[in-house]
Amino acid sequence: MKRSATAAPEIEALIALLAKTPGLGPRSARRAALHLLKKKDALMLPLAAALQEAAEKVRPCSQCGALDTQDPCLLCGDPQRDDGLICVVAEVGDVWALERAGAFKGRYHVLGGVLSALDGVRPEDLRIAKLMERASRDGVREVILALAATVDGQTTAHYLAERLTPLGITISRLSHGVPVGGELDLLDDGTLFAALQSRRST
Amino acid sequence: MKRSATAAPEIEALIALLAKTPGLGPRSARRAALHLLKKKDALMLPLAAALQEAAEKVRPCSQCGALDTQDPCLLCGDPQRDDGLICVVAEVGDVWALERAGAFKGRYHVLGGVLSALDGVRPEDLRIAKLMERASRDGVREVILALAATVDGQTTAHYLAERLTPLGITISRLSHGVPVGGELDLLDDGTLFAALQSRRST
Repeated sequence: MKRSATAAPEIEALIALLAKTPGLGPRSARRAALHLLKKKDALMLPLAAALQEAAEKVRPCSQCGALDTQDPCLLCGDPQRDDGLICVVAEVGDVWALERAGAFKGRYHVLGGVLSALDGVRPEDLRIAKLMERASRDGVREVILALAATVDGQTTAHYLAERLTPLGITISRLSHGVPVGGELDLLDDGTLFAALQSRRST
Repeated sequence: MKRSATAAPEIEALIALLAKTPGLGPRSARRAALHLLKKKDALMLPLAAALQEAAEKVRPCSQCGALDTQDPCLLCGDPQRDDGLICVVAEVGDVWALERAGAFKGRYHVLGGVLSALDGVRPEDLRIAKLMERASRDGVREVILALAATVDGQTTAHYLAERLTPLGITISRLSHGVPVGGELDLLDDGTLFAALQSRRST
């Protein structure tokens, strides 16, 4: 690697990787790298170790698709939770958001995205087969489609509702408490709680 | 570590460390962690390795105080640069900003901060003794005080000008191209270039 005029290649490589992290651009990545180099023992080395450890230990749950160090994950393995309710979300961050709100005590199912003609995301790209299998099990009473109020989110909810209807179980969506155009992960706990409480049958 | 309801402790630890990085808050740290976990091989493990490598190899230069993997650093060791000019900056990021602008071909000196009554930063907390030693060497013609146009930055420049005056060399400051209240590191290259070109004797 040719030596650039600005900083050592080890620093430039670090900045380039930091800049790929959501929330950090090229400029803030540079500031972050400098801050980390100033706090090597307190922050930089612990962060390196935490990244390494999480990368090695964290895996998707074979049941719900959420991320955990155990499989089935803590939420799928918890005997206190209601097996009769499945809450379908797009991403793992949505599970975390709903858990922070503390409004749901059933099981989750992470699709791994939403259908999108623009991004070329088709039904077979999402964890829909596994959802159908789980929703078909004895004792499942309701599937809650907790998807964002975006075009793609609602298209996905509509598609899933059509697929799930033959199972003869209740299919519901989050209420209109979710702001139109908003992402679940960015909502405050109170709004999420209200949206879940006033969910409506589809 | 007690298992929280939201995510595995390995993930929570990672989020807590990411949230201490400038530019990332608690919420964006969560999104960043999730993104990293999705891109383990392409981003997460390389980032862990880059952090580890930079933490091990990067050290402050014993001459100028900038960060590099070699000592003296590339800029101090470059025979093409003018030994007669010393540009004094507060932080390593300022060196990078001036190098990106490409407007300066002398040597740098990183103070490691600015004097601050509020933050309790005294002259002995900065690399001023080393600056005096370097500025006293034969052949040094000018010291450029490239400090921010903040109260603390200008107080520091004033203090340094008084200390350096007995040496009988030219002491200059960046011109008024630097916006008042602005930090060097955040300036565009063109403004930095103009400010350096039209520097004035103090």
